Order: sequence, then C-alpha cells, then structure tokens
Amino acid sequence: MSERPSPKTTDRNANDMANAIRALAMDAVQAANSGHPGMPMGMADVATVLFRDFLRVDPSKPSWPNRDRFVLSAGHGSMLLYALHHLLGYEDMGIDQLRNFRQLGSRTAGHPEYGHAAGIETTTGPLGQGLSTAVGMAIGERLANARFGDDLVDHHTYVIAGDGCLMEGISHEAIDLAGTLKLNKLVVLWDDNGISIDGKVEIASKTDQVARFEAAGWNTWSVDGHDADAVREAIEAARASDKPAFIACRTIIGYGSPNKAGTHKVHGEALGDEEIALTRKQLIWESEPFELPEAVVKGWREVAAKGREAREAWEKRLAAHSERDHFEAFTSGVLPSGLAGEMQNYRNALVQDKPKVATRKSSEMALEVINAVVETTIGGSADLTGSNNTKTKEMRPVTAEDFSGRYLHYGVREHGMAAAMNGLALYGGLIPYGGTFLVFSDYARGAMRLSALMGLRVVYVLTHDSIGLGEDGPTHQPVEHLTALRAIPNMLVFRPADAVETAEAWEAALAETHRPSVLALTRQGLPVVREEASENLTLRGGYVLREASGNRDVTLMASGSEIEIALKAAETLKADGLNAAVVSMPSMELFLEQDESYRASVLGSAPRVAVEAAIGMSWDRFLGDRGRFVGMTGFGASGPAPKLFEHFGITPDAVVAAAKDLVA
Amino acid sequence: MSERPSPKTTDRNANDMANAIRALAMDAVQAANSGHPGMPMGMADVATVLFRDFLRVDPSKPSWPNRDRFVLSAGHGSMLLYALHHLLGYEDMGIDQLRNFRQLGSRTAGHPEYGHAAGIETTTGPLGQGLSTAVGMAIGERLANARFGDDLVDHHTYVIAGDGCLMEGISHEAIDLAGTLKLNKLVVLWDDNGISIDGKVEIASKTDQVARFEAAGWNTWSVDGHDADAVREAIEAARASDKPAFIACRTIIGYGSPNKAGTHKVHGEALGDEEIALTRKQLIWESEPFELPEAVVKGWREVAAKGREAREAWEKRLAAHSERDHFEAFTSGVLPSGLAGEMQNYRNALVQDKPKVATRKSSEMALEVINAVVETTIGGSADLTGSNNTKTKEMRPVTAEDFSGRYLHYGVREHGMAAAMNGLALYGGLIPYGGTFLVFSDYARGAMRLSALMGLRVVYVLTHDSIGLGEDGPTHQPVEHLTALRAIPNMLVFRPADAVETAEAWEAALAETHRPSVLALTRQGLPVVREEASENLTLRGGYVLREASGNRDVTLMASGSEIEIALKAAETLKADGLNAAVVSMPSMELFLEQDESYRASVLGSAPRVAVEAAIGMSWDRFLGDRGRFVGMTGFGASGPAPKLFEHFGITPDAVVAAAKDLVA
Repeated sequence: MSERPSPKTTDRNANDMANAIRALAMDAVQAANSGHPGMPMGMADVATVLFRDFLRVDPSKPSWPNRDRFVLSAGHGSMLLYALHHLLGYEDMGIDQLRNFRQLGSRTAGHPEYGHAAGIETTTGPLGQGLSTAVGMAIGERLANARFGDDLVDHHTYVIAGDGCLMEGISHEAIDLAGTLKLNKLVVLWDDNGISIDGKVEIASKTDQVARFEAAGWNTWSVDGHDADAVREAIEAARASDKPAFIACRTIIGYGSPNKAGTHKVHGEALGDEEIALTRKQLIWESEPFELPEAVVKGWREVAAKGREAREAWEKRLAAHSERDHFEAFTSGVLPSGLAGEMQNYRNALVQDKPKVATRKSSEMALEVINAVVETTIGGSADLTGSNNTKTKEMRPVTAEDFSGRYLHYGVREHGMAAAMNGLALYGGLIPYGGTFLVFSDYARGAMRLSALMGLRVVYVLTHDSIGLGEDGPTHQPVEHLTALRAIPNMLVFRPADAVETAEAWEAALAETHRPSVLALTRQGLPVVREEASENLTLRGGYVLREASGNRDVTLMASGSEIEIALKAAETLKADGLNAAVVSMPSMELFLEQDESYRASVLGSAPRVAVEAAIGMSWDRFLGDRGRFVGMTGFGASGPAPKLFEHFGITPDAVVAAAKDLVA
Repeated sequence: MSERPSPKTTDRNANDMANAIRALAMDAVQAANSGHPGMPMGMADVATVLFRDFLRVDPSKPSWPNRDRFVLSAGHGSMLLYALHHLLGYEDMGIDQLRNFRQLGSRTAGHPEYGHAAGIETTTGPLGQGLSTAVGMAIGERLANARFGDDLVDHHTYVIAGDGCLMEGISHEAIDLAGTLKLNKLVVLWDDNGISIDGKVEIASKTDQVARFEAAGWNTWSVDGHDADAVREAIEAARASDKPAFIACRTIIGYGSPNKAGTHKVHGEALGDEEIALTRKQLIWESEPFELPEAVVKGWREVAAKGREAREAWEKRLAAHSERDHFEAFTSGVLPSGLAGEMQNYRNALVQDKPKVATRKSSEMALEVINAVVETTIGGSADLTGSNNTKTKEMRPVTAEDFSGRYLHYGVREHGMAAAMNGLALYGGLIPYGGTFLVFSDYARGAMRLSALMGLRVVYVLTHDSIGLGEDGPTHQPVEHLTALRAIPNMLVFRPADAVETAEAWEAALAETHRPSVLALTRQGLPVVREEASENLTLRGGYVLREASGNRDVTLMASGSEIEIALKAAETLKADGLNAAVVSMPSMELFLEQDESYRASVLGSAPRVAVEAAIGMSWDRFLGDRGRFVGMTGFGASGPAPKLFEHFGITPDAVVAAAKDLVA
C-alpha cells in the first residue's frame, strides 16, 4: 500500500468548512447511534474542495438541467451529503433532519434515497451502483450536449467512490464502458483510505487501482486527500481531461478522531461521546453538537450563491436560445402527442395482417413506430443486438467520437447496462431501454432493483424468455426469472402473447413515468391471437381473450407463448363438451391493480388452470384451492424447442388433462 | 487493436490434430443447425498445444484428484470440449454424441453441463462464470496442497476465456481475488479474437486486458494463438509463474473458413454446407463429416496415455503416502461421524439455556461446533465478517503466503465469492460457506443459480434478512429476496426462527451433498421458541411448533423472526377464545417434499394466516382461497427495527386481526 498521510492538527481558518462536515457527521451518527462516520470525516477535505471550488448546484433550484451531478457512490457515507446540503442551505435539509438521521419519516435515511430530499441525484448504498449510475448520467450529458451544444449542456458528473465500489464487479463494467466512450466530463474521486469492514483493504485486494483505470482508458491522478491544494489541482486537471478522470485521494478514515482514525472501528458505528470530545479538541472545533459557527455557514452560503449565479446565467442563455422549446420538450420526459395515434394505427394493422413472428421481433416492429416519433428513447443491448432486436432502422450507434446517435453497444455487461440506464433515466427526459436474455436478468438484478426502488422509467427488453429458446440449454433457459422479477415491488413485468400485446406492452411501459418495466419476449414465432385492437387490453394486466361459449366450466390462464397452448386446449375441451374461457395475463401487476369486480369477472368462479413455461409460484394466488398449474418444476434442457415443450409436458394435452381432472 | 494474424493455409502434418477439432466442431454445429463453430475453430491450435503438451487428465479415470482442471469459460464453444473428449477417447463421448450435438437426451448439451459427461469440470455458458469458478478450483488446489504437499496435490487449473468473460463484472472480482491470493497454478488463456456478437469488440470495449491483469497482480504473455511454438513457450513460462498467469492469444474466430473467418458471422450459427466444403479445402482436410484419419486418432490417444501414466504414478505415490487415509477422507466429502452427536449435544444445551441471540449469532455458535469437527468447511465473507458471523475462533485467514488457514476474505465481491465457492465445491471434498447480506444475493444470483443447476453443496449465509436490520434502509432491506431465492429450483432456503432451528438448518445444509442452501438470518435477537430438540424438525421443512388447545380455529404460519409474532398472536387469540396453532416453516422446499398426509396434518383444515417480513408470493400456495398474509407489500424504510415492524403492520395485533377476520 502507498504511504498514508498521518492525522494532522488542523489549521482552523483553512479547514473549518471541512470540519463542519466532520462535526455534523459524528454528531448525527452519535444521535442515531447508527451510521458511518468514518467516510464523511475522511473525505470532508476532498468534498469541501469539490463543492466549494467546482461543483455548481443551486439549492434554490435543485433540478435545473445544467447543474453538475454529484453521486455519493459510497452511500454509507450519507452524512457527508446531508451535511453538505445542510451547509449549502437546501431548504428541505434543516438541522432537524440531521438530528433525526436514520429515523423513520426523516429525509436523512441511512443511505441517500433518491426523491427523499432535493439534490439527491440517485439512491446509493449497494456498492458500485453509484459509480455505474454516474456513467449513465455522463452519457446523458454527452447525448444532450451533442443535440443542444455547450451553451445549454456543459456540466460535469462527479463521483465519490470507496474501496467497496471498486471491488464490486459492476465497477469494471462501468469503467470500461466509460473509457470506451471517452466520457471526459466524468470525474471519479476515490476515497483511498485503505480500510474496509474486514480490516485493511489489502487483505482482500492488492489491485493497483490507478493502473487498472489507466488500462480502461482513463486519465488518473494520485493525491493526498487532506491536501486541499493538491486535490484542487487534480480536479482542475481532471476537468480538462480528454478521457474520464480518476483521482485517487489518499485519506485517513475517520480523520480527526485521535484513537479511531485509520482503523475499521470508525467505519460503521458511532464514535462514542468520549471520542467525539477528543476529536473536537483535535480538530479545534468548539461548537456544540449540531451548532455551526456563523463564519462557516457564511462560507458555505457563498458557495451556494455561486451556484445560483451559474443557474441564472444559464437560464438567460436558455431563454435566448433558438432551441429553447426543443430543449424543454426533450428534457421534459413527456411523450409526443403523436405517439398514441401512430400506435393505434400500428395495432389496427396488426389485427389485419396477423404476422406470425417472435415477440422479440414484434417488439422491434413496435420500436420502429415508437422511435420514429419519440426522439428521447435511447436503445441498447448487452452485446445481443441481433437477438434482442433492440436496434431500429434509424438508430445510429453512440461512439466516443459521435454522441448524436441513440443506440448503445453496452458490451457483455448486463449489470453495468442496467445501472447506466438508471443514470440515463435520472439524467432527465431520456427513456432508456436495453436488451439481454431474460436469464441474464440475474446478472443485472442489483441495478434493476434500484430502477424499481427509485421509480425510474427504464425498460428491460428480455428476450429468449423460456425453454422456447431451445438448444442453448438450461444455463440460458429462464425458469424462475418471471417469478423472481414479479416479486420486485414497483416493477412491471410484461409477457405479451402476440404482436398486438407486445405493442400494447410497449405503450404501457412508456406511459409509466415512475416504474420500470420488463418485457419478457420469445425467441420463437407466435401467431396473432387478438382479433381486435381498439382498446389497450394489456393495460388491464389480464383480460378474457376468449370467453367460453356458455357457462364456464374452467378458466385457462396463460401468458406469452403459452396462450397458444391454452387456446388449443380450449378448442379440444369444447370438442369434448367443456366450456373453457382463456384469460391472457400479460402483466400480473397491472391486473392486481384493477378493481375487484373487474378481477372477479376475468377470473370467474370456475376452477382454473394456469399454464406458463416457468415455475408456477407467481400463479399460486390466482389458482386458489382447486387450481392446477402446467409449467416447469425444475431446470430446462438442451434440445429443439418443440421437443422441450413435449418433454416437460407443457402442451395442450396436458392442459386439457388438468382441466378435465378439475372438472371431473 | 493489435494486428491480427491472417488466415494461413495449414501445414498438414503439424496441424491435423487441431484441424480434427475444427472439423468436428463445424460438422456437429451443421448437423444440429445450431451452435457456435467460430470459437472452437479459432482456439483449436491453442487447445491442441494445451491438451497435448501440458494438461494431464486421464479419460479412463476422469475424476482422479490430482488431474489438471480445465474450464471452458467461453462455454458457447462447447464443441471444442466435446471434440477434445472424443479425440482423447472418453468412453461416454462417442461419435454418436457429437452427431447428436444439442439434441434432447444427449450429453453434448448446447453449453457444457457438469454431470452430463465425464470430465466436464463445471457448467459454463453464462459468461464470466467459468473463469470465476476456476479461481475457486485454484484456491482448492492451494488449500489441499498446503495440507498434503506436492506429492499428492500439484496440478494446474487452466481456463479458456473469451472477450465476453472478460467484459463481465464478475471477471473483475475473480481476477482481483486471484491476484491478491497469488494463485500461481492458475493459467488463463484468452481467446483474443476481437469479435463479439454485435461486431468488433472495440465498439464496446477498448480496455487493455493485458495491462488490466497486470494491475490485478498477474503475470502476462501475448502470443499469436495460431503459432503453436509461441503458445507452448507461453504456457511453459506461465506454469513457472509466481502469480496467476494470463496469456493473451490473438486468434481468428472461425479460423479456416475462407469467407467467414474473422467475422461475427461465424460466432453463433452453422457455416452452411458450401462454406464447410471450402473450409475443408483450405484446411486440407479430406475426411468425411464425423470421420477422422487414423493417424490423428492415434496422436490424440497417445496424449491420453500420458495422462493415464501420470495418474498411475500419482496413485502409487498415494498408496505409499503416510497421509493416504487422511487424504481420502478429506477429498471424500463425507461428514465425520462425530458431527451428529456433537450437534445433538449442542441442541440439547440450547433448549436448556435458551439464549436470546440473533440467528446470525446462533449460526456462528453452530459453526463453532461444526468447524471443530469438520475440517473441510471453508468459511468466508464478502467483507462482512463481523456482521455475517462467519468466522469461528479457530479459523485462520487464507493468505497468499499461507494456505493452511480456512477462512477467505473474499472482499466486497458477492458474485465472485459465490462462483469461487462453486469452484471449491467442485474441487472435491471441500464444503464452502460464505456470507453477505441477504439483499446482496441479488449481486450473486448468476453464480447461485449455477450452484443449484450443478447441484453443489454450497452454503450461503445471508444475514440481515428483513426490515429487522433497521436504519440502513430500503437498499439494504430484503423484501423480495426470500421469494426470489425460493423460486430457484434445487435450492434450499432456510429461515430459522431461533438458535435451535439455526443449528438444525446447518445440519440439514451440510447433509445435502447435491443441493446448495441459503440460510436467511436475522440481525436482531430472537428468543428460543423450541422446547425440545430430540428430533431435527427443520428437516421436515415445516412443523407444528405450538398445537392449538382444542380444535384449531386458525393456523398461523411464519418463519424466522416472525415466529415470535405468531406466538404472541396465538396467545392473544387464546385469551379471546380462539384456538390457534403455530406452524414454523423454516424451509418450504423441504416441507413440500414431505408426504401429503404429513403436510395435511401440519397445515390443518382451519383457515390460515401467514406472517413473514417480506412479500407474500411464496406463501400463496399455502394460503388457499381463504388465507391471509401479513407482511410487506413494497420496499422498506430507514429507521429503528421495532418502529419499522409497527410502521409496516407486521405485529401480533395485525395477525390477530387477520385471524379474527377470517374466522368471523
């Protein structure tokens, strides 16, 4: 390990702005008797330089589009952010919020939660996510800049990341993508404190991080994180970099604590009253807990004023700009009014033409309509473009040299893609969608969960959605994934049955401004089963696709590729004198949001059989005591798809047998 | 990009052994009309040098412990492995298997599946997993070597990895761990063909992989992958390396195909009859499809004979070795006979002492008993040792300098930890367990799924299992994870309610030689609820913890920390004149494996209320038409745990109200 600076007695005048952060952090953690004081105390000097001398945000208008973005990837150091916001004068971050750190109902959650307080650009805490989300924000800046120029879009994205962030695999995906795209407005400050929870970082990682970032195409600097001049010079150089910038800041965790600084003891628990008193002494900090010297507050408010000036100057530029209306529409996130009509025409054509195509293909067809009308959709795939059918005709790839395109080759990086999409959605106005195989949602779940927790409009195009993908075998065949995704709160999972439902699902997903969506799509061709398309029935989540002729003897429920099976089973049952209704369930989540009488009318009172080429757990609630499930009970196998459906007994005959058994 | 060698007309004598691989690969993919010919054709030269000159395996005894391990991390190139096994004479890999490539019931699945054919060391296909699993195998070798010396344990682990493997985040976790531990018997051969599915690799990744591996503490070499001498020299040097070794092999994907080599067209589909004919001509390969020249077969069988000699020599060394019995016991995977008695004593003591501790703590207590008796458990944590309570007293950490310990500081690398544990379990005899927070199972699912698919005894110690963790907030509070893990086939999920059930769960997990287990454990203290411990009731999955006094009016079901709530509710109900039984359900999977009459006796015919501090999806099947669920419906919040349980209505009162509502 490189040599670390030793704790210094602080020069009062130069360092009081930073010490205010330290004091608030240790006081708030002490009050909560829970939290992480070490990181805010260690990074207070770096953060002070960054916020005071570079970062332009305006607490009086936290969401102005050209603000610098700040991401605290080491989210456990949340008190760093809350202290800064308090000092800068964010209205919703009064001292009571800090006094109620980590208490139910306060804005000062254990980790920074997007939406809980102004200026929290993204939810962090799960390590590596902030850094990777910031890559998406930095892409967003370049995309907007390519469209509107430096006058309107010209800001940086700054990240503070810890050792944990850099150990997580997602960091690799993120920094490689950033390096490949030469995101030169991205500046990452690494809190190189040499300490992790288990002790010294070196017991688990001896990687040369600077060399690693250079290998990924970044420019790098190494500084003493307690030397404000050195930090300032590095950030200045980083802002002028032609590549993404990585600044390794050697720091002492818990800086200022005479007995605990530099050890893992200061990472994740309160210092204790005695040590806090000793720390105050060492820092020459005489204010009472949660109190601040006037001069310090004044200093920070002057910083905020600079942000306000920058914002006002930008607003003047915007007001005079020829692209003003376009810019405002672009960043609004509102769908163009023409979309609904185009989609209705498209759906009408589908029920006429009845194309038998895979839903991954009909997703592409829907996207052709959408992307022609919506300029803010940003497509991409984790190196499966031709399989996910995510790239429409007019989409040109985004490259390091040209950000005027709108298609991202994310590489074989599902997790990094999901996090980057979160960043794109957070950036403002953009509607990211990205593809991989459904089974590899496992790789991306960490970031997908954050899409749901933050309530972001991100669309996951997950193709090859069952054993129907065939020969690639069980490693590639999702079995548990529909259930596992349906289990995530605030996540919509669509599994459309034909081209019409696929178009409807896309419309539904785009209309959801505060929820992510999954589109689970087939590799194999499916017939159009819908006979008319005047209403978007997918918005209902589930609906009666074919009513029984006469009183229902049984209700068959299915989604996606198994609708075809259910329809065939219903025909056989009819021939055998049993009246079966077929319910299509493209989205359980939306169905459960319908009122009870609608749900009852769809589900009916006859016994039910559900069929889905997956495990049945998510269907249990619809089956009741008498219901039956036809689907998978274990992993898949390698072979041609039709043989697999036979082999695993997911066939019309099996549905017929289950129905007869129930009715008998 | 570095300059690539251009396709050469092949020198017949030198290259026929490699061309046999190419021919079999393109013929099998053509026969299946499905698969990936490009990688086997591109890496045939490298693989030939590796298998012919270095790798020691014995097709007549594929599982001898000191064999070299070979991992095809780029699993889509499965025909490379199948072709090699056929050529080496593995009995179960006759030509009919190759003719039936990717057909249902054949051993030649689309991707190599562990257990489908002899010598497949691990299942690969999900990119990055093979490389990361191999790190676990290489750790296994070092652990065994430290215990038994070079005479018995002295082999290499070789990996062929592709661009996709190196783009995946898990590769970062794996190579950093390998570098930190200086796994010098690990040799990774990178198929540097510059092509991925979306086109040239450089459109998505410009990382300098050689520099990246050096930053992670590896030694590196760069060679022309079609120059057998250069490859041989590099592998020779790599075998003598003091660090893990990375050999970048510049290759041409689909080498030999005159019109498709070097393009993504040859990656994932059959070449077509015409191009195959042209390739045969270019390679000067005159045999019919699936036929091989005698000289080539002879050459490969001579390689196999060398493996047999090596194995026989090793067996002689073993037979004469003083540690023979110990070695055989160590590698057998059989639990020592003393364990059951020790655990029974421990459980008896628990029902006496009734310690009120968190189940993460009672897990540590159980591990103290286990680790004292079982020498093959290999503990670890993803940098949460003190939180997961995974390190018992006598466990010393494994370091680069000393592999005699048995505790791994995996770093903040959940996914890499899970894959390394798969590798440790596959290595033979070892029983890996590793900890992180339950919520971060999301990061590890890719590898956890492979634990289940391969049927490996890997134990995931997942603590902080609900909102009960308190202040860290929704990013750290699992809500959907119990359901998402229960959804994985062949995975046991234990959520024990007290110290007794925790001990039982550990016993059950260790006894499962062909299934992974999750132990979901609390941060908060729980009272002992079991009154006697003569039978391991957790093996039943679910059981009646407290029978109702009199006929059951209602059955309350719960797991883990909510058992306490159910018991309190039952008391209140009793006071109100309602007879409630309380069913503890530590493992739904094991309960569902009980016979129907047992299950019926536990569940009873009274209405049921389930309570779990998580979403309810996995309980639906037990609730029936009339049942109620008390639990979470969305994400958690930051605050002290008791307040959160109140806030989200997971309380005895809520259970009482639900029960009364049902019975009324």
